[in-house]
Amino acid sequence: MPKIFKTDRALRFGDCDISGTAYFPSYLDILNGVNEEFWGHLGYSWHTIIWTQRWGTPTVHLSCDFSKPSLFGETLSFELGVIKLGRSSVTLRHRISCKQEVRWTSTQVLAASDLDKHTSIPWPEDVKHTLEAWLTDQETLGF
Amino acid sequence: MPKIFKTDRALRFGDCDISGTAYFPSYLDILNGVNEEFWGHLGYSWHTIIWTQRWGTPTVHLSCDFSKPSLFGETLSFELGVIKLGRSSVTLRHRISCKQEVRWTSTQVLAASDLDKHTSIPWPEDVKHTLEAWLTDQETLGF
Amino acid sequence: MPKIFKTDRALRFGDCDISGTAYFPSYLDILNGVNEEFWGHLGYSWHTIIWTQRWGTPTVHLSCDFSKPSLFGETLSFELGVIKLGRSSVTLRHRISCKQEVRWTSTQVLAASDLDKHTSIPWPEDVKHTLEAWLTDQETLGF
Amino acid sequence: MPKIFKTDRALRFGDCDISGTAYFPSYLDILNGVNEEFWGHLGYSWHTIIWTQRWGTPTVHLSCDFSKPSLFGETLSFELGVIKLGRSSVTLRHRISCKQEVRWTSTQVLAASDLDKHTSIPWPEDVKHTLEAWLTDQETLGF
Repeated sequence: MPKIFKTDRALRFGDCDISGTAYFPSYLDILNGVNEEFWGHLGYSWHTIIWTQRWGTPTVHLSCDFSKPSLFGETLSFELGVIKLGRSSVTLRHRISCKQEVRWTSTQVLAASDLDKHTSIPWPEDVKHTLEAWLTDQETLGF
Repeated sequence: MPKIFKTDRALRFGDCDISGTAYFPSYLDILNGVNEEFWGHLGYSWHTIIWTQRWGTPTVHLSCDFSKPSLFGETLSFELGVIKLGRSSVTLRHRISCKQEVRWTSTQVLAASDLDKHTSIPWPEDVKHTLEAWLTDQETLGF
Repeated sequence: MPKIFKTDRALRFGDCDISGTAYFPSYLDILNGVNEEFWGHLGYSWHTIIWTQRWGTPTVHLSCDFSKPSLFGETLSFELGVIKLGRSSVTLRHRISCKQEVRWTSTQVLAASDLDKHTSIPWPEDVKHTLEAWLTDQETLGF
Repeated sequence: MPKIFKTDRALRFGDCDISGTAYFPSYLDILNGVNEEFWGHLGYSWHTIIWTQRWGTPTVHLSCDFSKPSLFGETLSFELGVIKLGRSSVTLRHRISCKQEVRWTSTQVLAASDLDKHTSIPWPEDVKHTLEAWLTDQETLGF
């Protein structure tokens, strides 16, 4: 069984546009919050790593397919898997669903970065080991 | 005992600015989500009233005092009281705290509005009765 | 003649909610950008004062009256006056109009703050003199 | 010479996160505003097509590469080309630069959609002809 991080988010009025469905930049703001929750779950809260250790995980690549619109008031299920791990990067795969229907998917690459020098850094050893325990290939992940 | 609606919100990375504390427009986006949750709790989900009944509760007045900054990663406690009820408006009072410290307060006036005509309407009878049951004066509310 | 800073902003699709009118937290995000432009016009770009001098002007009080809705696609005229100057604070008055119709007004208090200590500081002498040259009373300002 | 739509955007304080560089969901909110300006330039303002003709152009695919961070206070140059035109979709290519340095690029697919039925529709004939006049292949476009 692949390790999948799951969490829910209500799609709020303020996340939607004139069509009553999610405004896509708001989707990505929500996704970033899901990533923040995931890192906290791993034991590396962004609060700690950014304030204390002065590194972060900016997004260097993002690819999204929006297949079905989501209406405000709906609760969305986020699933996150780790599908690739590099020396200083990690590739996440996201699936966002509601009522068993996939609404959108995303592949996102984060890079470990020194916040003061704005340069990429290798993963700290403990972070690397933690991420390795989540690693699965996309086929096994199933989305 | 005054009726107070309480809910929590994590202050996320994306809600904060370069100082690492809440960007005030993001505070108001969060507050709007708290209001949305409150109306759902009353039995009048915005989803239903907006889509089905074609009325809403736009903000016509807002006053905020930001007394202490909030850091990203903190969990904020929102308290909401109903301090005044008019023919087609309601005045809400909000207190937002963290670790027993008040971070900011707000007084907000919402007006019942016909979404198609963009005009104010009297509260539907059942909504009026529901809001009356929450009504308290600000002194009793205590914030 | 009172000194008034004027600038325009298009109300974009992404600033509007399901009603097709401005989402009020987006209004405040736009207002913050107008303030940023005003400070740049004064010769104190936020970029410089925040990065180089390590002080900023967080909002400590905000009061808004939203009298008429604004539709997406409209261009809004922002007018800003300085109506009060304290030792470490400044009170701004904003009027936002479209086609000679006032859409909303706001009174906003900014406090000069040390960004590292999160404490208020007196205005630097040159900033104080610059702001004094803009000072007018609200009656003369006319909004 | 390929047809390229060009416009500038100041990166504002409110678009940046704790690192002082652009928060990527804000980048996409800005990008959406650039698209809105492009459609207005074509003669199809979103205001008109959404309110009057009841169709829109939601994003169905988005791919971004963020190669260099952008600092708040910088002015970004947006370049937009049309690289593919389908029966009811159009593929846009974006390059965002500052001081001759590419900061990020994006490929975005928009689909013509009926806003009431939430279904895709073929481009209206006049829109199709207008977009055809902008069509270029990505190699010729050069980014």
